[in-house]
Amino acid sequence: MLKGIAASSGVAIGKALVIVDKEVEIERRTIENVEAETTKLQNAVATAKEQLEKIKEIAREKIGEDKAQVFEAHLMMLEDPEFIGAVEAQISAESICAEYALKQTADMFISMFESMDNEYMRERAADIRDVSKRIINILMGIETASIAEIDRECIIVINDLTPSDTAQMDKEKVLGFATDIGGRTSHSAIMARSLEIPAVVGLSNVTTTVKTGDMLILDGDEGVVIVNPDEETLQKYREKQQKLIEYKKELSKLVNAESITVDGRKVELAANIGTPSNVEGALKNGAEGVGLFRTEFLYMDKDSLPTEEEQFEAYKAVLEGMEGRPVVIRTLDIGGDKKLPYLKIDEEMNPFLGYRAIRLCLDRKDIFKTQLRALFRASVYGNLKIMFPMISGIEELRQAKAVVEEVKNELKVEGIAYSNDVEIGIMIEIPSAAIVSDILAKEVDFFSIGTNDLIQYTVAVDRMNEKISYLYDPFHPAVLRLIKMVIDNAHKEGKWAGMCGEMAGDERIIPVLLGFGLDEFSMSASSILKARKLITSLNYEEAKKLADEVVMCATSEEIKSKIQNFVNR
Amino acid sequence: MLKGIAASSGVAIGKALVIVDKEVEIERRTIENVEAETTKLQNAVATAKEQLEKIKEIAREKIGEDKAQVFEAHLMMLEDPEFIGAVEAQISAESICAEYALKQTADMFISMFESMDNEYMRERAADIRDVSKRIINILMGIETASIAEIDRECIIVINDLTPSDTAQMDKEKVLGFATDIGGRTSHSAIMARSLEIPAVVGLSNVTTTVKTGDMLILDGDEGVVIVNPDEETLQKYREKQQKLIEYKKELSKLVNAESITVDGRKVELAANIGTPSNVEGALKNGAEGVGLFRTEFLYMDKDSLPTEEEQFEAYKAVLEGMEGRPVVIRTLDIGGDKKLPYLKIDEEMNPFLGYRAIRLCLDRKDIFKTQLRALFRASVYGNLKIMFPMISGIEELRQAKAVVEEVKNELKVEGIAYSNDVEIGIMIEIPSAAIVSDILAKEVDFFSIGTNDLIQYTVAVDRMNEKISYLYDPFHPAVLRLIKMVIDNAHKEGKWAGMCGEMAGDERIIPVLLGFGLDEFSMSASSILKARKLITSLNYEEAKKLADEVVMCATSEEIKSKIQNFVNR
Repeated sequence: MLKGIAASSGVAIGKALVIVDKEVEIERRTIENVEAETTKLQNAVATAKEQLEKIKEIAREKIGEDKAQVFEAHLMMLEDPEFIGAVEAQISAESICAEYALKQTADMFISMFESMDNEYMRERAADIRDVSKRIINILMGIETASIAEIDRECIIVINDLTPSDTAQMDKEKVLGFATDIGGRTSHSAIMARSLEIPAVVGLSNVTTTVKTGDMLILDGDEGVVIVNPDEETLQKYREKQQKLIEYKKELSKLVNAESITVDGRKVELAANIGTPSNVEGALKNGAEGVGLFRTEFLYMDKDSLPTEEEQFEAYKAVLEGMEGRPVVIRTLDIGGDKKLPYLKIDEEMNPFLGYRAIRLCLDRKDIFKTQLRALFRASVYGNLKIMFPMISGIEELRQAKAVVEEVKNELKVEGIAYSNDVEIGIMIEIPSAAIVSDILAKEVDFFSIGTNDLIQYTVAVDRMNEKISYLYDPFHPAVLRLIKMVIDNAHKEGKWAGMCGEMAGDERIIPVLLGFGLDEFSMSASSILKARKLITSLNYEEAKKLADEVVMCATSEEIKSKIQNFVNR
Repeated sequence: MLKGIAASSGVAIGKALVIVDKEVEIERRTIENVEAETTKLQNAVATAKEQLEKIKEIAREKIGEDKAQVFEAHLMMLEDPEFIGAVEAQISAESICAEYALKQTADMFISMFESMDNEYMRERAADIRDVSKRIINILMGIETASIAEIDRECIIVINDLTPSDTAQMDKEKVLGFATDIGGRTSHSAIMARSLEIPAVVGLSNVTTTVKTGDMLILDGDEGVVIVNPDEETLQKYREKQQKLIEYKKELSKLVNAESITVDGRKVELAANIGTPSNVEGALKNGAEGVGLFRTEFLYMDKDSLPTEEEQFEAYKAVLEGMEGRPVVIRTLDIGGDKKLPYLKIDEEMNPFLGYRAIRLCLDRKDIFKTQLRALFRASVYGNLKIMFPMISGIEELRQAKAVVEEVKNELKVEGIAYSNDVEIGIMIEIPSAAIVSDILAKEVDFFSIGTNDLIQYTVAVDRMNEKISYLYDPFHPAVLRLIKMVIDNAHKEGKWAGMCGEMAGDERIIPVLLGFGLDEFSMSASSILKARKLITSLNYEEAKKLADEVVMCATSEEIKSKIQNFVNR
C-alpha cells in the first residue's frame, strides 16, 4: 500500500498503465547558422502555440473557462520576450542549438521559481517545465505518447501529470491517476477534481513500484494506492466504490429540492462562479442562486481594461442564465496576489495588506464607474445584487455608494434602463468591518462573509505561507465569534447574511453556520448537493444550541469535537 | 514663509547658516595600475570606518544606543561584499578610477532603492548616499566643513542632513535646522527629536531662498520657516518660544509626580526602551516602569545568535537600572520586516502575516529557551515581567508557558536562583487574541496592547505602504472597541491591562484610553511628562463617559470631534 496525498475524491479499481517519461538527452551542439536556428525555434514555438490552442479548446469544453486559463498562461509564456527572447539571445551569443538554449533558459527560470517559498510560484515552475518540454519535443521531432489516445480502461501511473495531459484525458478510459509528485493545490489536482477523476498525488515512488498491468485500487479520499490487492481487499473497495456511486445517485435527486432543515428553516445554497460559462454547472448542481460572481476574469490575461460593453455582456449572460434567481456580483477585487500588468501598480511589501479591491476602485473611479455602469445596464436582465469587496469601515461604504448614485444618475440622464431593486451589499472579510457590522448593517442590504481573507487577517496569517499555514484555522474561536457577530448584526437590522468563503461549503462546519442563522451559503458548485443533503438532515433549533456552545470554547479542538458529537448523535 | 514638514518640536529664532553641498565633479579617469587603485579604495574605506566609529561613539553618548545603530548600518555597508566588491570589480573591469567606480555603483544602488514604493527602502538610499559621499571625499582629499565645528549660534539650512551630520551637531550652537528634502520618519528627523533640536524638513527650496545671515523663525510644530520676519511676528514667536520653555519647565516638575487624575484614579506611565542604555533617559523623563523592553537589539547587527550570558547581562542591567520598578521584557519579536541574516528564513510574500515572533520561538525552541533562561536568571535583580509577542490564541500561550515551566525546572535542577514572582503576560496585537481575550485573561497575569500591529491587522493595512496608509487609523471605531474589549476582559479576571503601541503616548487619544480603564501606558520616554500633565488634569469618571460614547460612533471623524470637545470644555 502506497500513501500519498488525496487529490480528487472517489475510488478507482483497474489495471495500471505506467507512463515513463523518457528523459530526453539534450546535447550541446554548436551551430553555424544562427539565423536558421532562430527560425527553427520560432517555427517550433508556432507549432506549440497551435497545439496549445487546440488543447485549450478541449479543456474549455471539458472543465470550463476558468480552469482552462492555465493554457492561456502557457500561451502567454510563448509570447513572453523575457523567456523566448532569452533563448534567442543564447542561440546567438553561444552559437548553440535551439533545444539546448531552451533547456538552459527553462532550467534557470525553473530553479528560480522553485526556490521560492511559495506554492503559487512553484506552480509557475511546473508550467515552464510543461511548455518547454513541448517545444523541445517539437524541435527534436519526438512523438509523445498522447494521453488523449488511450484506448482501454486504466489507471494512469506517471511521475507528474502536466495540466495539458490532464485536460486531454478521456474520462471513459482513465479511471484514475497516481503521480510521484504534486500537491493538493497543483493544477493537475484541481483539474482532476473538476473532471471528477479519482487521483492520488505525491506518492514519491509509484512509477518505480508499480508495473503496467498491475491491479490497482486507488482511493482518492484516503490518498492511498494498493498494488495487486487480495480478493478480500478488492471486495471491500468494490463495496466502497458502490456506496459512493449510490451516494452520488442520491445526491443527484436533490438537484431540485429545497434546502430546508427537518424543523423547517430554509436557507439558500448558492454557487461561487468565475465566468459566465460556469452558470451551467451551477444549475446542474442545484444552485439556488449565485452568491459570488468574481469579475476578475474580465480584467486578467489581457493588455488593457475591459470595455463597458464587454462587461455588460458577461453580466447579462449570467443574469439571464440564472433565470431570475439571485446573482451577487462582486466588483473588481484586483491587487494583492492578483496583479494586472497594464495597471502598473508598484510592488508592495505586504500585498495582502495593500492597495487592492475597493481601495483601488475608490482611487481609480474611472475603472469603478465603468464596471458599475455595465452592472446597472445588465440589472434589467435578472435579479442582480452588487457587492463591494474589502470594505473596512463606514466611510468606504459611503464613498462606494456615492459612486453608485452617480452612475445611476448618469444612466437616468442618458435614458438607459436599469433596475431600481438592485440590492447593495458588502463582503465582510476585514476584522474591522466585522467589529463595526452593527454600524454597517444600517447602510447595506446584505453582508457576505468572505472567510478566506477574514481568517487571514483575524489570525494574522498568510495561508499561502507553508511555515505558518497551520494557524489558518476556520475553527478558531475568534473566527466563529466574528461570524456570529456579523450575522446577528445583520438580522438586528432586518438584513440577510451570506457567506462566500470556503467555509460555507465545509461540511465539518455547516451545522454551526446554520445554527448562527446564516441565510445564504455560497460555495463551489460541486459542494452544493452534499451541503443540501447535510442541511436537510439537521434540526435548526438544535444547531442553534450547538452554535451557542462553540463560541464559548477555548480551543478549536474542543470546537471540532463538539461538532463531531453533534453530527454523530 | 516657507511650509515644510514638522520634524522636531520647538521654536528656533536666529541667523541662518546656509551650507551648500558643493556637487563634486567626478571625472571618469582611466587608470593604469588596477592593484594600486584597489588599494587606494581599500585605504579610503578603512579611513571612513575610523571616522564612522568615532561618530558612532559620539552619537551613542548624545542620542543613545538604539539611534546610533544607523552608523552600525553604515559600517556594515563598508563591509558588504556586494557593495565594495562591486566597486572593485568595476575598477578592474573598466580600468577606471576608484571614485568614479564608487559613484557609479552607489548611484545604481541608490536608484534601485529609491524606486521602491516603501519609505524604509528609500531611507536605505539615503544611507548609501551618506557613506559613498564620505568615501569619495576621502579619495579626492576634499575637506568637508564639519557641522561639529560650528562656532556660533545658528539655524542650519541645508539640502539634506545626513545622519552623521545630525549626530555631530552641538546643541549649544545649532538652534534648529531646515532642509530641502526628507520626511518625518527620515533618520535625521528621528535624531533631531532625540536631540530635541527643532527641525523642519522637506521645504523643497529653502537652500536657494535663504541666505547665510538671514534672520529665521523656525517652528518645528507647525512645520514653517519664516525668513526675515517683521518685529511683530518676531515678538509673537518669541512669546511662543517662551511659553514652550515654561511648559517644559512645568513638565520637568512632574518627573517625580504620581500619574493620578483629579478624582484619584492612578495609572502607571512607563517607557518603551530598546537597549539598557535607554534606562537613564526613561528615569530622567519620569518613567514609573518599563512597559516594553524590546530585546531585538541583542539579535541584530551580528553574525550569530546572542549567548545566554550576553542576554543575562543586558536584562540584569535594565532590571537593576530600574531599581525595583516594574520591567516588562518582550521575548524575541524577529521576522516580518526585521530579518536576521544568520537565521536564513525564506523570503515571504506577506512578511507581516508570516513566520515571526512567538511563531518562530515555538518552532525554534533552542532560541526561545536560551532567552527564557537568561530572563529567569536575571529575575532576581528586579521586578521582571515577561511578555510574549504575536499570540493569536490560547494554544500558543499554553505552549509558550510550557517552555517557561521547562526552563524553570532546569534552573531548579541546576540550582540556579530565579524569582517565583515573575508575571507572565502577552501582547494583544492580533485581532483574534483581542476577540478571545476573555479566554486568554484566565491564563495570563497581564495584557499589553500593541496598537501598531493591532491596527494593521484589524484594518488589513500595511502602514508602511504609502498608497493606503490613510487607512491606518487609531480612531477607527473597530480599533477602539477591540481595545475596550481587551481591557474589560482583563479586569473581569482581575488582571491588569497595559498598552505599548504608539497610541499609548498619543495625547489626542489618552482621555479615551483612561476612560476605558487602561492601567499602564507605555510610550517613548520623551512623551511621558506630557502624558502625565494631561492625565493629572483629567477626571476619570468623566473620561469613562466619553469612552462609552466614542465606541458607539460610526466614524473616526465623529470620535475625534467628541474627544476634542471633551478636552476643550
